Amino acid sequence: MKTAYNRIAGQSLERLSALSDGLFAFAMTLLVLDIRVPPIEGIHSESDLWRALLGLAPRVGMYLMSFLTLGIFWLGQQTQIQFLARGDRNLAWLHVAFLAAIALLPFSTALLAEFMAFRLALLVYWFNILIIGVALYFTWSYAVAAGLVKEDAPADVSAAVKRRIFIGQAFYAFGALLCVVSTYASIVFIMLVQVNYAVAPRFRLLYKL
Amino acid sequence: MKTAYNRIAGQSLERLSALSDGLFAFAMTLLVLDIRVPPIEGIHSESDLWRALLGLAPRVGMYLMSFLTLGIFWLGQQTQIQFLARGDRNLAWLHVAFLAAIALLPFSTALLAEFMAFRLALLVYWFNILIIGVALYFTWSYAVAAGLVKEDAPADVSAAVKRRIFIGQAFYAFGALLCVVSTYASIVFIMLVQVNYAVAPRFRLLYKL
Amino acid sequence: MKTAYNRIAGQSLERLSALSDGLFAFAMTLLVLDIRVPPIEGIHSESDLWRALLGLAPRVGMYLMSFLTLGIFWLGQQTQIQFLARGDRNLAWLHVAFLAAIALLPFSTALLAEFMAFRLALLVYWFNILIIGVALYFTWSYAVAAGLVKEDAPADVSAAVKRRIFIGQAFYAFGALLCVVSTYASIVFIMLVQVNYAVAPRFRLLYKL
Amino acid sequence: MKTAYNRIAGQSLERLSALSDGLFAFAMTLLVLDIRVPPIEGIHSESDLWRALLGLAPRVGMYLMSFLTLGIFWLGQQTQIQFLARGDRNLAWLHVAFLAAIALLPFSTALLAEFMAFRLALLVYWFNILIIGVALYFTWSYAVAAGLVKEDAPADVSAAVKRRIFIGQAFYAFGALLCVVSTYASIVFIMLVQVNYAVAPRFRLLYKL
Repeated sequence: MKTAYNRIAGQSLERLSALSDGLFAFAMTLLVLDIRVPPIEGIHSESDLWRALLGLAPRVGMYLMSFLTLGIFWLGQQTQIQFLARGDRNLAWLHVAFLAAIALLPFSTALLAEFMAFRLALLVYWFNILIIGVALYFTWSYAVAAGLVKEDAPADVSAAVKRRIFIGQAFYAFGALLCVVSTYASIVFIMLVQVNYAVAPRFRLLYKL
Repeated sequence: MKTAYNRIAGQSLERLSALSDGLFAFAMTLLVLDIRVPPIEGIHSESDLWRALLGLAPRVGMYLMSFLTLGIFWLGQQTQIQFLARGDRNLAWLHVAFLAAIALLPFSTALLAEFMAFRLALLVYWFNILIIGVALYFTWSYAVAAGLVKEDAPADVSAAVKRRIFIGQAFYAFGALLCVVSTYASIVFIMLVQVNYAVAPRFRLLYKL
Repeated sequence: MKTAYNRIAGQSLERLSALSDGLFAFAMTLLVLDIRVPPIEGIHSESDLWRALLGLAPRVGMYLMSFLTLGIFWLGQQTQIQFLARGDRNLAWLHVAFLAAIALLPFSTALLAEFMAFRLALLVYWFNILIIGVALYFTWSYAVAAGLVKEDAPADVSAAVKRRIFIGQAFYAFGALLCVVSTYASIVFIMLVQVNYAVAPRFRLLYKL
Repeated sequence: MKTAYNRIAGQSLERLSALSDGLFAFAMTLLVLDIRVPPIEGIHSESDLWRALLGLAPRVGMYLMSFLTLGIFWLGQQTQIQFLARGDRNLAWLHVAFLAAIALLPFSTALLAEFMAFRLALLVYWFNILIIGVALYFTWSYAVAAGLVKEDAPADVSAAVKRRIFIGQAFYAFGALLCVVSTYASIVFIMLVQVNYAVAPRFRLLYKL
């Protein structure tokens, strides 16, 4: 029987992880490029510089927000991969699709920061997070279906991974819906959800989600 | 006998993989830099923003196409390296040449997207893919000739790897030839070939290629 | 009992290291992008070129200074991680916060280089180094508290790590205070502290710090 | 006895390699950013596009030359590290200095390509390669002196590594000297030396160098 190329391709989880880490590192620093040193012309005093730096505050906020979101999904992908025994080429392609959506996040974040009052900007941002979530869901459900998960993984890991994605996406969708009231309400709500995921407060209820 | 430097250089497959993953990650995100947030001046309504975002669609398409092509060759390189027992400096240089061609791909893709109706742009794009394919072929045939392949690799891996490269390149060459009819015919054909490689449909005939 | 997602996330120290190395590599090269080849117009002789290159000297200095600072903190993070037996998601988030502060360093450095005579620029630079130091302190004290440190780590590693951070930050704070006299005094003092950390002179007193 | 921080820092060769690979990958692709798709305005025919692409040829050449040089030094560093049993913080700092010089190479290369007829540009390029060589020499001689080399490394590895650096640098210095005649003579000579290192011809004499 001939060895089909597709059966031997994409088995290395190490390389998938390394590609992902490189791409996340690059995406995380991409928005730093938008924080530019103010031009020295027209700045003659400490208070001029102070005003110029205050003008950069939204970009710094944007940068931190992007870092937060990317951190959440970096952890989400890592959590999945650590429970896999091996990869295959379909899994590799699903992760490449996930990464393609990840690399768009700095754009969506910058768009939202520039057009905070526009529902369309908010929906683009939400849609980006949605396709990331969908991709993460499929990487995991494919891994389970294809028998790539480690034998010694806790029996309910699969449920925990999927639950986290569903609940997270439900929060994001609710936040996006809030734009019917006001896009600012949406943004504040989504920010709080993300900070919650990073800080993981010890409130029993939220921690178990 | 003196130790010749060339005999001890470039043996690490781990470092070759890490260099490649970093370069692929960077090349994959390079075209994101061209998707710029539209300037806020002149955008006064949701529909203005909608039109501005629609104007970005070709760049997003270009970005996804580049991601797809880079994913195909990232998998191709990875598939080879996982069957190697060790490297040597000639192999390292062949892979560096491969990477030099890879890093040009975002340029070729952007050129084609900008000049879709120009045969020259299509031929540049095809030529880039051709030299990538040639480099991948030589990395593998060198590895086989130099005895770098793992002892326990399936006997017909070599045939499978070479067959995949030949068939892929034959499709690309045929697509390039279609520009005699129309460059759009070429582009659509090449896109379909690439999506086929990513999705790997279960049609028996195509899967075995 | 249900597996809480937070208990299974972020355990891989390898991926944390890889993400950090990618981000440090990118941050280190970021300021190179500001060293631009002078435009060929208006350069007609060797001495014209010489003058143009001399004009780049501050940017080269800035670049080297940034490299030095990033090298110090890269080593600081690496030293911690090598003594850890495993990670968890809180540790991962603390390191992501550390990385977010690291990626801002090229900006702070460029700001200081452009506004050397401004106290505000110096305080921004110092504040950036302070939050990096605070983040590094918390990554370590959390790791100790959560029992993530290797069993066979020398008993006083923890004290050595914390002492280094405290003494380093004390020097930086003293340097920042010197701006009451002159920002140049601050800059020279901070430079000397950093060169000292890189060169690690054999003077018994300083080496033990 | 107190654990001195400097004795426990920087021991990981894996992280040093990963940082290096990330930085090399970034430096290798940096010059691709200068190869820009020609603006569509003013290009109305295939021959217009052909002329525009020909105008990019020097940048493509520059890019390939930079890739070649970076490949040579990436291999040089890798060859050293694979013979090390462990690292320490002085070694880490010497490699960081090496990397700082590496990341400047795209600038030097672009400068030379823009100012080919200027001796100063050639001397800057040569000086960059000189400090890279000096750094590589010191990373190795320090590793030997500090007992970091693997016990089972061939006895004459050290001689082979140093010989390669000396002979390479002698060629580069001779090439730089040729600028007394003409900078073009220098460039052609240096190019030939670099291609020789990549291709490693089988002529017995050259191969043994």
